[in-house]
Amino acid sequence: MVRAGRRPGNVDTRAEIVAAARTAFAELGYQRASIRGIAKRAGVDPALVHHYFTDKSELFIETMDLPMDPQRVQSQVVADGRPFSGERLVERFLAQWEQGPPGVGSPSFLTMVQAVASSPQTADAMREFLSDRLGTHGTAGEDAVTQSRRRALVSSQLLGLGWVRYVMRVEPIATADRADVARWVGPTIDRYVNGQLPPEGAPGHL
Amino acid sequence: MVRAGRRPGNVDTRAEIVAAARTAFAELGYQRASIRGIAKRAGVDPALVHHYFTDKSELFIETMDLPMDPQRVQSQVVADGRPFSGERLVERFLAQWEQGPPGVGSPSFLTMVQAVASSPQTADAMREFLSDRLGTHGTAGEDAVTQSRRRALVSSQLLGLGWVRYVMRVEPIATADRADVARWVGPTIDRYVNGQLPPEGAPGHL
Repeated sequence: MVRAGRRPGNVDTRAEIVAAARTAFAELGYQRASIRGIAKRAGVDPALVHHYFTDKSELFIETMDLPMDPQRVQSQVVADGRPFSGERLVERFLAQWEQGPPGVGSPSFLTMVQAVASSPQTADAMREFLSDRLGTHGTAGEDAVTQSRRRALVSSQLLGLGWVRYVMRVEPIATADRADVARWVGPTIDRYVNGQLPPEGAPGHL
Repeated sequence: MVRAGRRPGNVDTRAEIVAAARTAFAELGYQRASIRGIAKRAGVDPALVHHYFTDKSELFIETMDLPMDPQRVQSQVVADGRPFSGERLVERFLAQWEQGPPGVGSPSFLTMVQAVASSPQTADAMREFLSDRLGTHGTAGEDAVTQSRRRALVSSQLLGLGWVRYVMRVEPIATADRADVARWVGPTIDRYVNGQLPPEGAPGHL
């Protein structure tokens, strides 16, 4: 695409910003990419990027065609002062991916896993994005290592759930009601978030 | 590729059988594909297919470049009369994917998820293969629906674990010792295999 210098704000400009962001995230990862650098690549003023996108996370969500900001899903779970609930997190996680008609699964989830699986750079960017956006629940005061462990375990179960429900379509998870899946998987999330997890190197039972 | 009728057993023939099997599984799925049909596609006698591959599952494992027969992993977990252990299943699952040097992750796992994510037909074949090869543990006498639910939940956690360890490389799961990961995730598997799971439509706490 030939760029003719700066352009006024219009649909093409927005698309060029997104294209520039996609390249920047792939080359630099999420953390090292910046609004300023993306603006430069797109040949526009950083203020124009901010005109379309509140911040870098919103731009990443757009480039990956994600249906949501993971941080918002987390907030919904504990909205109105409710205590954390693994069951509610699972239900919210699934609901965000299922915005099309029932039974269609989640084209967005499939697109996301294809992108992440096909490029180590995209996988890196996605990991950095999640690490930046996901807080911890119910683990105030714990050290950073333990918090990372809890977060990684929660991610493993939620992403695996999406994998069997949307990609491999394993029954009964593929077509069960979200509320049922949430009841089955919720206790797993509760343990990862609030339960005792042995430290690395602890004795096991193999 | 031009086929010159039946050929004697040699490396080329084996490769042709595998290529024919790959096409058959993609077109027909795992269940409907047959050794006889694959032999016909490859232009060889079914006996020659059996010369190279014990059964259809071995052929599927070869076409998908899987490091193992999932059934064998299941057997290892309860070998020598030991009771089922989620911790041991997680350790065995990871060990089978990690046959290269430490720290390299699992190229086979990445290849598998790329294949499954890129084609619905391959996803279907993989699902049918797992359904055919995976038995249940500790749930003798339960109805088929409950057994499928347990198996799907176990798959969701194990595949999600592979996803964060090998594809997204989320720390600390990416580089933790297998034994540590097994201790964190084992209780989840135990609950999916032996625990109480509410039936579909049961009241929840959303």
